[in-house]
Formats: sequence, C-alpha cells, structure tokens
Amino acid sequence: MAEVEKKEKKKEYNLKEFTTCESTLMMLQKAAAEGVDNAFFRAAEMKPCPIGMESACCKHCAMGPCRLNPKDPYSRVGVCGATIDTIAARNFARMVASGAAAHTDHGMTMLDVFRDVVNGKIKDYKIKDEVKLREVAKSVGIEVEGKETLEIAKELYHELEKTYTQVEGEIPFAKRVPPKTLETWRKLGIVPRGAMREIMELMHRSHMGVDQDYRNIVLQCSRTALADGWGGSMVATEISDILFGTPKPLVAAVNMGNLKEDHVNIIVHGHEPNLFESMIDSVNDPKLIEKAKEAGAKGIQLLGMCCSGAEALSRHGIPHAGNFMSTEAVLVTGAVDAMAVDVQCIKQGLSTVAKCYGTRLFTTNPRCKIEGVEHIEFHEREPRKCTDKIVEMAIERFKNGRPDRIVIPPRRDFGVHGFSHEYINYMLGGTFRASYKPLNENIINGKIRGVAGVVGCTNPRVRQDWVHVELVKELIKNNVLVVQTGCSQIALAKAGLMKPDAAVLAGDGLAEVCEAVGMPPVLGLGSCVDNSRILIACAEMVRIGGLGESIADLPVAGAAPEYMSEKAICIGQYFVASGVYTVFGVTFPTIEGTKFHKHLFEELEEMGLGKWGFATDPIEMAHKMIAHIDKKREALGIMGPRERKLFDMADRRALDVV
Amino acid sequence: MAEVEKKEKKKEYNLKEFTTCESTLMMLQKAAAEGVDNAFFRAAEMKPCPIGMESACCKHCAMGPCRLNPKDPYSRVGVCGATIDTIAARNFARMVASGAAAHTDHGMTMLDVFRDVVNGKIKDYKIKDEVKLREVAKSVGIEVEGKETLEIAKELYHELEKTYTQVEGEIPFAKRVPPKTLETWRKLGIVPRGAMREIMELMHRSHMGVDQDYRNIVLQCSRTALADGWGGSMVATEISDILFGTPKPLVAAVNMGNLKEDHVNIIVHGHEPNLFESMIDSVNDPKLIEKAKEAGAKGIQLLGMCCSGAEALSRHGIPHAGNFMSTEAVLVTGAVDAMAVDVQCIKQGLSTVAKCYGTRLFTTNPRCKIEGVEHIEFHEREPRKCTDKIVEMAIERFKNGRPDRIVIPPRRDFGVHGFSHEYINYMLGGTFRASYKPLNENIINGKIRGVAGVVGCTNPRVRQDWVHVELVKELIKNNVLVVQTGCSQIALAKAGLMKPDAAVLAGDGLAEVCEAVGMPPVLGLGSCVDNSRILIACAEMVRIGGLGESIADLPVAGAAPEYMSEKAICIGQYFVASGVYTVFGVTFPTIEGTKFHKHLFEELEEMGLGKWGFATDPIEMAHKMIAHIDKKREALGIMGPRERKLFDMADRRALDVV
Repeated sequence: MAEVEKKEKKKEYNLKEFTTCESTLMMLQKAAAEGVDNAFFRAAEMKPCPIGMESACCKHCAMGPCRLNPKDPYSRVGVCGATIDTIAARNFARMVASGAAAHTDHGMTMLDVFRDVVNGKIKDYKIKDEVKLREVAKSVGIEVEGKETLEIAKELYHELEKTYTQVEGEIPFAKRVPPKTLETWRKLGIVPRGAMREIMELMHRSHMGVDQDYRNIVLQCSRTALADGWGGSMVATEISDILFGTPKPLVAAVNMGNLKEDHVNIIVHGHEPNLFESMIDSVNDPKLIEKAKEAGAKGIQLLGMCCSGAEALSRHGIPHAGNFMSTEAVLVTGAVDAMAVDVQCIKQGLSTVAKCYGTRLFTTNPRCKIEGVEHIEFHEREPRKCTDKIVEMAIERFKNGRPDRIVIPPRRDFGVHGFSHEYINYMLGGTFRASYKPLNENIINGKIRGVAGVVGCTNPRVRQDWVHVELVKELIKNNVLVVQTGCSQIALAKAGLMKPDAAVLAGDGLAEVCEAVGMPPVLGLGSCVDNSRILIACAEMVRIGGLGESIADLPVAGAAPEYMSEKAICIGQYFVASGVYTVFGVTFPTIEGTKFHKHLFEELEEMGLGKWGFATDPIEMAHKMIAHIDKKREALGIMGPRERKLFDMADRRALDVV
Repeated sequence: MAEVEKKEKKKEYNLKEFTTCESTLMMLQKAAAEGVDNAFFRAAEMKPCPIGMESACCKHCAMGPCRLNPKDPYSRVGVCGATIDTIAARNFARMVASGAAAHTDHGMTMLDVFRDVVNGKIKDYKIKDEVKLREVAKSVGIEVEGKETLEIAKELYHELEKTYTQVEGEIPFAKRVPPKTLETWRKLGIVPRGAMREIMELMHRSHMGVDQDYRNIVLQCSRTALADGWGGSMVATEISDILFGTPKPLVAAVNMGNLKEDHVNIIVHGHEPNLFESMIDSVNDPKLIEKAKEAGAKGIQLLGMCCSGAEALSRHGIPHAGNFMSTEAVLVTGAVDAMAVDVQCIKQGLSTVAKCYGTRLFTTNPRCKIEGVEHIEFHEREPRKCTDKIVEMAIERFKNGRPDRIVIPPRRDFGVHGFSHEYINYMLGGTFRASYKPLNENIINGKIRGVAGVVGCTNPRVRQDWVHVELVKELIKNNVLVVQTGCSQIALAKAGLMKPDAAVLAGDGLAEVCEAVGMPPVLGLGSCVDNSRILIACAEMVRIGGLGESIADLPVAGAAPEYMSEKAICIGQYFVASGVYTVFGVTFPTIEGTKFHKHLFEELEEMGLGKWGFATDPIEMAHKMIAHIDKKREALGIMGPRERKLFDMADRRALDVV
C-alpha cells in the first residue's frame, strides 16, 4: 500500500452506526485499521455549520455573509434587509438551479450524441430501440406514419432541442402532462419555456436585490425544476433508451462480492451512460481480454457504481458494486484496478483513497477534473480511444500495482432490475392489453393502497441504507407498491427486496398482485435522471382514469430519505410541482415555523401542486406517506381497506378511454 | 411619520465613518434620530461570518455545510474530500454564474423588446439611433449596404439572439475581440458558445462531485464571464443605444438636492432602461403634470438612482439622486413620493424605510417582487399603463401622505456625463478623423500614462464613496485617465470630478490633454452593463495599434474598490479574462496563500489573460494599478516619464492601419 496522503484517524468510531451495508462496514474496518480517511470519518469529525444547515446564512453579496439566528429567525434581517424567508428561498433557489443544471447538461450531452448518431458522425452508437423512438416522437406530436427511422429521428432531435434552447412557449414534453396539471401550471405561470432560460432566470432572481418575495422565488424554483423533470432529465432518459435500449427486467447482482480477485476489476462511476456503454465494448474486446490474460488475469470484470451503474444494471445486467457512500469503501478492497468517473457525485476524496491502494483513477469528462487525478478525455465520436486506454491501465495495475493484501467482501445480492414504465404496462396488462389499467384497478379495488417513489442518495450523516430499507419495508407491508431509482434502488437490492419472493414482506393485497404477476413489490427503474420514468408513469395513471384528473389527485407519494445532493432538492421540487407529496430525510434547508417553510410544506398543496414533508425516522416517514395516500383515496372515494368500489357507468367509461 | 416596523437603534454610531456623502450622512443622522433602520446600521451590528467571508465554507450538498479553517486552510477537507481550492473555486463559480445570469437576463429582455419593436408589436419605443444600428450590424458581419433599417434590424436581432441561445460555436461579439486575445481564448477553450449554456454548465460543474480542479473551474468561470461581458452585457448596452440613443456628453446634476419639496418626486431605481424611458414619457405627459398641479405641486420631478439612473443621466441628463448605499437614505428625506424599482440591487430594507415615511414603493418586474410591496407589473407592450399609474400614486401621496417634516439635503453636483466609446472617438479625433488614434498617441508619448476603469458598487462595510474618490484622485494625479460606470461614477460625480475643471487635479500630462480637448479627467460611461463600453474601447485601442496586439498588452487596469454584488465578481472576471489587471477592495472570496488565490492573482496572467488584485487602501490600490500600467509600458517600450518615443516605420505603419 502506498504511503501517500494517509491521515491518522482521530477517534474510535462505532462503525456500525455508519452503515448497514455489510461490505461497506468491512471496508470501513479495514480503512480504520489502515488509517485511510473517507467521507464517513470526515463527517463524524466535522459538525455541519448549524446556521448554514438551517439555511439562515446568505453569501449572495459582499456586504455579508449575513447570519440570522435559526432559533429566533425573525429577530433580525440581513444587511440588505433580506428576511429569513428571502434568504432561505434564495438558498433553495440556488440548489434547484444547480440540480436542474446538472440534469440539463447531462440531457444536452445525450442530445448532442443523438444528433451525431443521426448525422452519422458517431458510428459507435446507433438507434437501438426504434419502437421507443416512434413512441417518443408521437408523444411530442410528430407524425410518424410512413416515415423512415432516420427522418423521425431528425425531427425528434429538432423538437427535443427546444427543451434546452427555447426562450418562449412550452417545453415539448409538456404535451405529456395531464391536462389538469398543465392547466394549474399555466395558471401559476410555471410551465417551463426552456431549461436554460429557467436556470438563468433563477440565478438572476436569486442575486442580491432581485426577487425578495419567497412565494415568487418558489414559483421560479418550480418552473426550473419542472424544466428538469419534464425536460432535462426526461430527455436524458428517453434518448438513452433510444440509443442503448429500453430496459426490460433481468436478474442481476449487486454488492462488492462481484469484484473478482483473479480478474482485472474496472469500475465505472458517474451519471452519463455514454462512457459506460463504450466501456462495455472495451471489456468485451477479445484483444483486451487476451491482454488481461497475458497479465495473469482470468478475465476482465466490469462493475458499475452510482447512477450510470444503475442504468447499466437495468439495461444490461452489469453488476453494481454499491451506492454513493460505498465509492471510497470499494477502493479499500485493494481489488479495484481502475475506476473511471464522468460527472456528478464523484467525491474528491476518491483521489486520496485510490492513491493509498494504487488504484488507477481517471476523470474522463471535460466538466469534471480532479486535482492530481489523471484525465483521459472521453469523446463520443471516438469513445473507445478513452475506454480502451483505461482498460489497458487497469491491466497494467493488475500486473504491477496491486497491494499485498486484497479483501473482497463476499456478498452478492441478486434481484430483478430494469423496470421501465413501458415494461410496467406490459407486465401488468400482458401483450394484448398492455396498459396501466390493471394497476389503476388494483389501486381502486384497494389491493394496492398506492404507489411510492423512494429514491435519492446516501449520506454519511445517517446510517447508510438503513432509512431506505426500513422505509420501503414499512411501505410494502402497508400495501404500497414501491418504485425506485438511483442509490436508493441499490440499497434495497442489497437488502434483497428486488426479488419476487420479497412479496412475503408485503401486505396481503400487494402480495397477491405481486404473486399473480410474478413481480417484486419493489421495482427498480434505473438512475436518478430516470425519476422521469416515475413522472411518465404518474401521467399514465391519470390518463387511464379512475384516479382523478391531475397528478395531485393520485394516491402516490415520494421520498428521498438519505438525500445529499442539490439534484435531489431539484428532483423533490419537480415532484412537488407535479403534484406529489415528497418527504425528505437527513435535514431540510428551512426553519420550521417560518413562512417559507409553511409555503413549501403546506401552501403549495393548496395551490393545486404537491407539497414537501420531512422526517428522519423511516417508520414515521412511511406513515406520513401512507396518511397522504389515504387522504387521496378518501378524496377519490376509494377509501376503506380492501373495499371494492362499486363502479358507476362514468367510472367505467373513464377506465375505457385508453 | 408612520409608526410601522421601526427598529430601535442599538448603539451610538460614528456616522461619519459610514459615508463621505454629505447628503447620505445627513439622512443617516435623521434616521438615527427617528429610529429608522438601514443597511449601514445593520452592517455595523452584524459581523460578517468569518468563515464564509474567506470562502472556506461549502453549502453545495447536505453532507455539510462544511467549514474549513481559514487560518489553516489545508488542515482539513470537506466531507466529500473537497479541498479549500475546490470549495473556494466553486463558491466563486456560483458568484460568476449569478452575475452573468443577471446581465444576461437583462440583455435578453432588451433583445425581446428590440424584437417586438422590429415586429411592430411595441409602439412606444422605436429605433432611435440608426447609425449605431448599422455600426453594430457591421461589427457582427452583417452586410448593411443598400439595406433598409428594418431589414438590418431583423438580421441583427437574429444574429444577437445567438448570444443567448447558441449551444455551439462562438458568440457574435467574439468578432469584436482583438485577434490575439481571441486566439488565447481559443487555445484555452474559453470562447463562449452562448450565455445560457455557459451559465448552465457552470452551475453543473459547481455541483457536488463534479469539477474538483480549481483551474478547470476557473476556465469555465472565464467562459461564463466572457459570455456576460462580450455577450449579455454588451447586447444590453448596444440595444439600449439603438432604441434609446447613444449617449453624448451633457451637463447633468447628481445628489439629493435634486429633490424638490414643492414637486411630486419620483425615483426610478434599478437596472433596465425600459421602465425609466417610459417613466420619462409619463412625467412629461401634460395631463399628469396638470394632475400634479391640481394636487398643489409645482410639477413632477423625476430622478434616477443606481444603474438605470446612470443610464438616464447619460442619455437624457435626468438628475441622479445617489448610488446604491443612498437608496434607503433618500427615502429618509420624506420627500420621495414614489419609488419604482425593477431588478437588481434593490434592498429589501427599502420596504421598511418606505413605510416609515409613507413613500409609495412599487415593484414592476415579474422577476423581482418584495414581500409586502405593491406590484404594478410593467409590460413593454403597454409601458405607460404601469408608469402612469405610478405617477398617479405619487401625486396621491404628495397630496395626502407626506410626513410633517421633510428634509432635503441641499447638494447638487453638476458634471459632464454620457461618454460613449463612440463619442470618445469623436471627442479625441474630431469629426474628420474620429478615432482612438489621438488617445493611443498620447499614451505612447506618455502624456497619458494609461487608462483605468473604476467601477462598481458601494458597500456599507467601507466608508461610502471614499475609496472610489481617493483612488480616482490618485490615479489622475499620476496621469492615468479614468473611465467610470455605475455607482462609482456617481460617487465621483458627487465629488465634482466629472467636470472639465477637475483637470487641475490631474498630473501635467493628463491635464494638458484634458484642457486641449475640453474633457474631464474622469469619463462617465453609464451603468454597470455599460462596462461593455470599456471592453470595446480596449479592443479599439488594440486595433488602432502601437499599444500591443492583445488587450493584455495595453497599459490599462480596472478596479471595483467598494464592490458588493456577484455581478461585480463576474465583471471582474470578464475583465481579467479579457486581459485586464483588476483590483477589488472591501474583501475578496479567497484565502491568501492558497493555490486558488495564486491562480487568480498570478497564474492567469501567465496564461495570457489578466489577473486579479486586492487592496483596501485607495492609495495602495492606485499604485498597484499604476505599477501594472508601468509594467505594460515597459513591455511596450514606451516607459519613462514624458519620454517621447522615437517611432520607427513599423510603429508608424501600425498606427496608420485604422
């Protein structure tokens, strides 16, 4: 083990408090023994700023930074006169802007690739899912009958580009929004024009001396967030499906036990599928496999981590080594020969841990470099140049750079991944009547109480995976079907809940549906941009009928129990603005009792949108969500456990309009 | 005086330490006596956060906020592993993004108005300066010969729109950049594609886990800032000139003595000229004047404050009541019947002060509302609807709402305003050889040592106006010609330095030029978006020849001695990236001795750009700038006081290529 940049551990930690992930725990024990610093230890050693945590400080000009008193937030104002509500709303706005920018930039990259594929400038990728191409084109009003694939693709490109560049009008996927939801948005003036304009305007409005009415700021937060959910993210998901295939359920393995000591181990960690797709080609190249064998390896093992990993898991069944809070831990195994990262959620701390174990760490995206880390730029027009090189470097490290002692945690957890909203159609309805109708029916008849999206990051401020897993268990026990994305999905996969036999943990009604269909009670939909799949599913549930006219009427709820990123805040805001009650854990950047807090947690619902919730305890969180689902059931007149609703003709007609 | 929301003053302040502006001081005394809170008092009572001030905290994810130790910045890293350099660079990036967004959104509004004027949808504004229209069109490569005004205007609209929406290529005004400067940008990959894309990408890159190499972050900061200076801001300036006229020198008055007790007093405070231009029409409407007279007033007095005020001062000679730190103070006079604000630098505290004195305060822009403040939305297609209403409300307040005691500070300071870079051409060269050639010649012959831009805000953390005035005095004493914009220009105008007879304060060489031409030694160019005029002037100096090939070669420097806004940081960064040594005062969001600090303050210059400087003392600041100017003179071979350079033929040829 290299002797660089190691840091003395400052205290004895109770490592079991840090994580419920067995593999991560093993690696934290090893890291502690070997004096290797990581985000868990750093979080234990650094108290979050108590003022910043409550969003009671403002750094938006050089008259400050101003600090209000979180215990008595109306006792003073900032130097400019900004109240706690202005300050917290502005801080919130910056989070939304950054989160939306991350997804929008990701989506724009996908669209750039799509354009180059369509123009023939990129040869390494192609349109893989023509059915999806046509469906997406139709959904934005493009006439597809009698047209060639390429013609449709070109039209679709031009239409979807508006998602980003348009400065007036409505983004293309606004056409997918249930009419009543869209009407509410129009009334409030929050239909996004184009993602870039909304981000710019939000950054302007959160500048010193501009928007100082928290309600007005939140309107632009909603508009910007919707430009992410129904724009940046949705384009990313749809183009990824068109280029790389729409996921279909497959059995795949997660956890660190997928590392193989006798193989060259390569991890791709990040968010954009492009790098990953090319890496799949590289590791399957017979010449490179041969090279690995010449170096003494039995082969090359590719694993994903974080969100691009969740996509590759869903699309191709590539094993996944762990979620956000395991990215440093996995390097402590010593078994990782190379880790290639692209953008988002890449801890700078990886650099130090990688050096400790001689792992070759590479940045590949021009937007994301790390001081002291080797950069091999990935170009979509010549993707293999980058990924082949990384494989070669990994082989080199396998041969010459491995540490004396490698420890691979043994766990591999199998489950079913790759549920797309299209597949849910098929799964529930069968080939001949693919539709969400059976889902709606089972919700109406009460077998399924409602649907919950449980998503988001992991965070060293709470015990890794624990809140995710306990929350989901409580939800399914109460007959709430759970859909998942991102790091949360991996937490549940490690806990074994992605298997159909996890239906034993579900309440009777949900278990009955799961057993009838052969599906698990927890459906993994992919990466965090794939939260857009949940939006589409919600829109589809409204369209099928019987569950109200807007997304806000549906008996659904969302949660990000261990979130940490600004993207998560933006995702939360687009769910809320779409009409979903969304509960976050860990911490929330508002002070209870302030007007801004009340606005997010109560008033938005009164305006016809969803609203925010907060809880740190998973059981409490589950029951907040269930109470909301019940409230919506009540309003729909479908309340009562297992109460079979008597359909009148209007209901039946609504159900038949598919 | 209304009894609402007054606040007990907590300590006895030495008010003279707060400001050198006599009028503001008088009003602070009145405010103190009357218990009216304001930003000066709040700043005195609230210490800036010592960690945030040094940019040693990071709120970019919910694992934090993390706080490093500003005294020992490398002793720890953030939870994610971010070093002080990553954290400070990310914080800096957010400032640049917000500043660029503010100017870009302003420019886009101007372009929206221009489009509607061209399309005939707006009747209240028209193309006022056809010469400028043609010049701007030519500068971006539009063929104008034989074309009608409207045709050119349409083409120009479409070309300039790319400044915002384009996602690939180079923004249109990149064509105005000196070739060698542009070459440096291309080499570094920092030529802006489109302003919105750069802002979005910067917000993405400053998200947790993305860009973690401060040098890479600064590259995108430069690209984004350049998209402001040579994009968002420059379009704002150029379109404003086309629609409302290019400023020409005129004598105008600044300071609070321009309020008239027997008139209805209306102040417009903000940044976009649209509201102001319409207000000029409203206050000149005979019907409204008649109404004012019926209410007992002798007439209606319109005044500007802040940047739209600086524009109206420059274009039309409308009196200006004071800069940023006087906006609350002016309300304390009790004489202001209405204040209409649009966007940027509008203190939320105005709301409380206005209530104390019964002043009618109105927000007018949908991007900028203030809790509890009446909103009358301004629509460019029917601008008078808003401004007439505000005038009526002001008349109403004059009649029924004035406080018992009105105190108007007596000072009115006259000076010459309205220097555009076009006028500088004419002024120096005369009608027949309008050019920057005489300027360059006078710099080469040493009469003028160099040119300094002194710009930016005022800030209650330093004595208002004092640093601006002392800095400029020291510069002109040392034969440095000073150009100004924004709040700094108003500070110097109040100090009387905008008059030609201020040449007595200049060094012999500069005084000689000023007297020959009849110009003051300090030239006011307008609002803060008009900093783009300084960029154009720099480009013109390079084009004329004799002073090097790039902006970085010029004997020029910039300063924002009392800055407070994120816009100022963005302006600073675009000057630095354009090649200008730029010195800020008050505070700077870096820690000396860190790599990031060194990068901004030293390395950028080594890369062919400008660099940052910092000083709080005006004399020290002046001499940093002068030393830099001398360094550039040395490099150009034109050093030595009053040394007349012997021209060789190459020099003469360079001068002749105009």
